[in-house]
Amino acid sequence: MSKSKYAVGVDLGGTSIKIGLVNKEGKIVKKISVDSNAQNGPDEVVSQIKKGIKLLLKNIKDKVEGIGIGSPGTVDSQKGTVENPPNFPGWIKVHLAKSIKKEFGVDCFVENDANAAAIGELIYGSGKKFDNFIMITLGTGVGSGIIINKKIYGGETGGAGEIGHTTIDHNGAQCKCGSKGCIEAYVGNNYIIKRVKEELPLQPDSLINRLIENDMSPLTPKIIHEAALQNDTYAISFIVDIGTKIGHGLANAINTLDITNIIIGGGVAGFGDILFNAIREATVDRVMIPFKPRVKVKPAKLKNDAGIKGASALVFYKS
Amino acid sequence: MSKSKYAVGVDLGGTSIKIGLVNKEGKIVKKISVDSNAQNGPDEVVSQIKKGIKLLLKNIKDKVEGIGIGSPGTVDSQKGTVENPPNFPGWIKVHLAKSIKKEFGVDCFVENDANAAAIGELIYGSGKKFDNFIMITLGTGVGSGIIINKKIYGGETGGAGEIGHTTIDHNGAQCKCGSKGCIEAYVGNNYIIKRVKEELPLQPDSLINRLIENDMSPLTPKIIHEAALQNDTYAISFIVDIGTKIGHGLANAINTLDITNIIIGGGVAGFGDILFNAIREATVDRVMIPFKPRVKVKPAKLKNDAGIKGASALVFYKS
Repeated sequence: MSKSKYAVGVDLGGTSIKIGLVNKEGKIVKKISVDSNAQNGPDEVVSQIKKGIKLLLKNIKDKVEGIGIGSPGTVDSQKGTVENPPNFPGWIKVHLAKSIKKEFGVDCFVENDANAAAIGELIYGSGKKFDNFIMITLGTGVGSGIIINKKIYGGETGGAGEIGHTTIDHNGAQCKCGSKGCIEAYVGNNYIIKRVKEELPLQPDSLINRLIENDMSPLTPKIIHEAALQNDTYAISFIVDIGTKIGHGLANAINTLDITNIIIGGGVAGFGDILFNAIREATVDRVMIPFKPRVKVKPAKLKNDAGIKGASALVFYKS
Repeated sequence: MSKSKYAVGVDLGGTSIKIGLVNKEGKIVKKISVDSNAQNGPDEVVSQIKKGIKLLLKNIKDKVEGIGIGSPGTVDSQKGTVENPPNFPGWIKVHLAKSIKKEFGVDCFVENDANAAAIGELIYGSGKKFDNFIMITLGTGVGSGIIINKKIYGGETGGAGEIGHTTIDHNGAQCKCGSKGCIEAYVGNNYIIKRVKEELPLQPDSLINRLIENDMSPLTPKIIHEAALQNDTYAISFIVDIGTKIGHGLANAINTLDITNIIIGGGVAGFGDILFNAIREATVDRVMIPFKPRVKVKPAKLKNDAGIKGASALVFYKS
């Protein structure tokens, strides 16, 4: 046991901070969660992270190689700083890595959470065998990370990979980023629920109505998927439409980057084969001819605790 | 004079091959043009390139550092091969660099013509001061090259940078690449002319009607620009619409790449300030907030003979 290498992974969220002790194979051997208390400002959040790590490491005898943190907001991974994370009032710029390193005496690496998810797949998951891939995380938002030659591609300021905010219809749905027709504006979790709620009254025969017993409040992507698995025409066509839109957005990224390996994670990816087949078909349909035979669309391997695992992967990736 | 460094730049086109002797400052000191005779197959074209270079170098005493070739089609710049250039019947894969190097005893570098244009701007033009930029060439097609850390970003197979074939409307106009709503399908030269010809009968007051004396055959982007410069409402709104579409496409590339320096060349860029202002406005409107203040959209510096100059720049770029 003492020969294993361990890292701490911190998944910083607006409500809670999930922290795990992860071995080099990506297995979580212990995990805890603490409130982020984001409303009390950055000092409190940093203090909660420290408190959580101490709690996690209590009675742990194994040597920890380092601490990785996946954070929302604009992250400068060289400097270990986090700027303006949404849902964290009062943050301007916080020197997170420096503060954590000082407290625990081990290296600390901070990355944007979408990039951390991509590094997680690179080190532990579906990206192990790829030198280059695009990772998309389908959740409330649509995050993405671009891996080039087994490294995160950050662009000029670390802000690259906002594929969720590329448009597929420049006169289309208003996106909260200010643009129109962004992939996120069609396939973000809230959008999906909103659209099904609007369309369902026109689909009286859909099985979804029975599954939710005509009460919209429990409607989730999972219920839509369940109906689709039972061959509900509306549910299937809905998921295919979501997948088609994702595929058309991915084709833009592929034509720009000449990277044809795609890994897709996040809750909405739970739509399973129906979604993945639709994404594949739409992507291949729209990329330039030489790219068509090379397109691979794979589900992410890290499911639950992807945030903790991705963050811990930063340690093994950097060291 | 003998201290100057010279390169030969070859601009390989479907109809003619333009060849120039270019100094390190990007000045063409001599140039010639020969027919490409593309219909006679690859051996004939390669033979024409050799003939042209010999003609160019006749009576030239200065040492030539190398030969650069900008070619349509899929170029493997490492191997110096050209595959399937459109409008070149009978080409499968031609080892162009090897053949030219053998004939002239100097290094030969081959690049895709859109990438060569970007390297031309990097070495001689508007990209000199940038480490990273996106170069778009607006012509019959919409070509693009991506410069990252002063190098062409080629992606996995050298096919990166097909920004002209990214969609801004996935249900939009059919593009000849097989996809729909690509930037090229809205702003390619032929599309522009076709659209103005369709719209002009509904614009009887437009100055364009008088400039072409109601005969559509001489209609060119230049005439549309002339009308716009004389405050023709229709011509201005047309150019602004073209610029807006380019800007929305560029915003996708910027959000993906975090590269905010844009250089635009090619004939359609002759629409001038009206076009560039529209591109700037639309790009800034649609990129993610942190990118907005950094967006720079500049015209290409290499105008006439950009093909020759870009090709010659390959020599100084590689050596």
